[in-house]
Amino acid sequence: MTKNISIEEKVLNANDQLAGTINKRLVQAGLFSLNIMASPGAGKTSLIEKTLEIMVPEHKIAVIDGDIATSIDADRAAKAGATAVQINTGGQCHIDANMLQKALLGLDLDTFDLLLVENVGNLICPASFSLGTDKNILIASIPEGDDKPYKYPGMYQDVNALIINKIDLHPYVDFDMDYFIQGVQMLNPGLVIFPLSCKTGEGIQDWVSWVMDHIQNYSIK
Amino acid sequence: MTKNISIEEKVLNANDQLAGTINKRLVQAGLFSLNIMASPGAGKTSLIEKTLEIMVPEHKIAVIDGDIATSIDADRAAKAGATAVQINTGGQCHIDANMLQKALLGLDLDTFDLLLVENVGNLICPASFSLGTDKNILIASIPEGDDKPYKYPGMYQDVNALIINKIDLHPYVDFDMDYFIQGVQMLNPGLVIFPLSCKTGEGIQDWVSWVMDHIQNYSIK
Repeated sequence: MTKNISIEEKVLNANDQLAGTINKRLVQAGLFSLNIMASPGAGKTSLIEKTLEIMVPEHKIAVIDGDIATSIDADRAAKAGATAVQINTGGQCHIDANMLQKALLGLDLDTFDLLLVENVGNLICPASFSLGTDKNILIASIPEGDDKPYKYPGMYQDVNALIINKIDLHPYVDFDMDYFIQGVQMLNPGLVIFPLSCKTGEGIQDWVSWVMDHIQNYSIK
Repeated sequence: MTKNISIEEKVLNANDQLAGTINKRLVQAGLFSLNIMASPGAGKTSLIEKTLEIMVPEHKIAVIDGDIATSIDADRAAKAGATAVQINTGGQCHIDANMLQKALLGLDLDTFDLLLVENVGNLICPASFSLGTDKNILIASIPEGDDKPYKYPGMYQDVNALIINKIDLHPYVDFDMDYFIQGVQMLNPGLVIFPLSCKTGEGIQDWVSWVMDHIQNYSIK
């Protein structure tokens, strides 16, 4: 068991080192990047589609989609105007820095304003694997329930922004927003939160403005 | 990398062996058992509550709840009339046979008619860890989207029954039932499927009848 843990630590350290290398490469290219994480079906691909709808063609956006199987998500991103690359993880429950580095080889990073990495749908494992992106984004969704920060703290405590998707379903489900926010603030005080609906478009503009501000500050930096 | 895979294989083999031991113990006790898996928030705990509502006190039911943190789910199961044991996985993304075996030590198995194991909310990792339960159950949910069988095939292909929860939300979300069922049947032909709503109670009775039939056949066997 000790041997096992020690190998796991080595794998994580190697991942973090590679994530550092990726980060340097992205900074050098002046490319603002987001690692988008969520449970299956919380709305990662829908958020990317809505973001592209507003930002393309003024901005050049690359999307890297991680999935266990199929290229459904990358196809949707490409249709919405992104340069899209699909990573099939071959059963793995997360994207790691090595997979991302390989996917980045297919992109001319200097030509893009924004890189969106859509992680595998999983509320646990992706939190352990840094990718070297500038910000980590978590999407919660109303029908998932209001207890998720309490039950999946690892994912909530290290992200830089939180989206609460599917607010159009709030009238039809029991979701105590105060209880949810209280759990989030306990783990990640002051976290910026965007309640929105990818279906109706409500709240999307605030999220996109946040992304655009960061792109601008990033290119100045 | 080869070394890593070989250790993973050993871990999985050891898990399967222990699952076999657990299965023998459950069969010996005449205890029908279900391993309930799903994404976070698909309704595992709600399904258990609804099942208990109908079956208790006529049936004696034990519930073992696996979570990364908190005892929220076990508390809900206990309140609904089960003997409940909480497993906190300490960050692990699934229950393994070793954790289940330890949790079973706290239960006098001969005194129960049904054992419900609620796995960690995760649509990927639990599929790789047999627990020795009699049946594997998967809960899908309408707001998760209709593409999940295509994107998470590993979970869909080995389960013995599928619940489609939150059908009360179907009018408010885009979910193509034919496309979803087609994906399921491709991976797991003839799989028994229970569309239901833990919120309204619609369809719950069919599911509970299936469970009761199995308990009866199990005790005859």
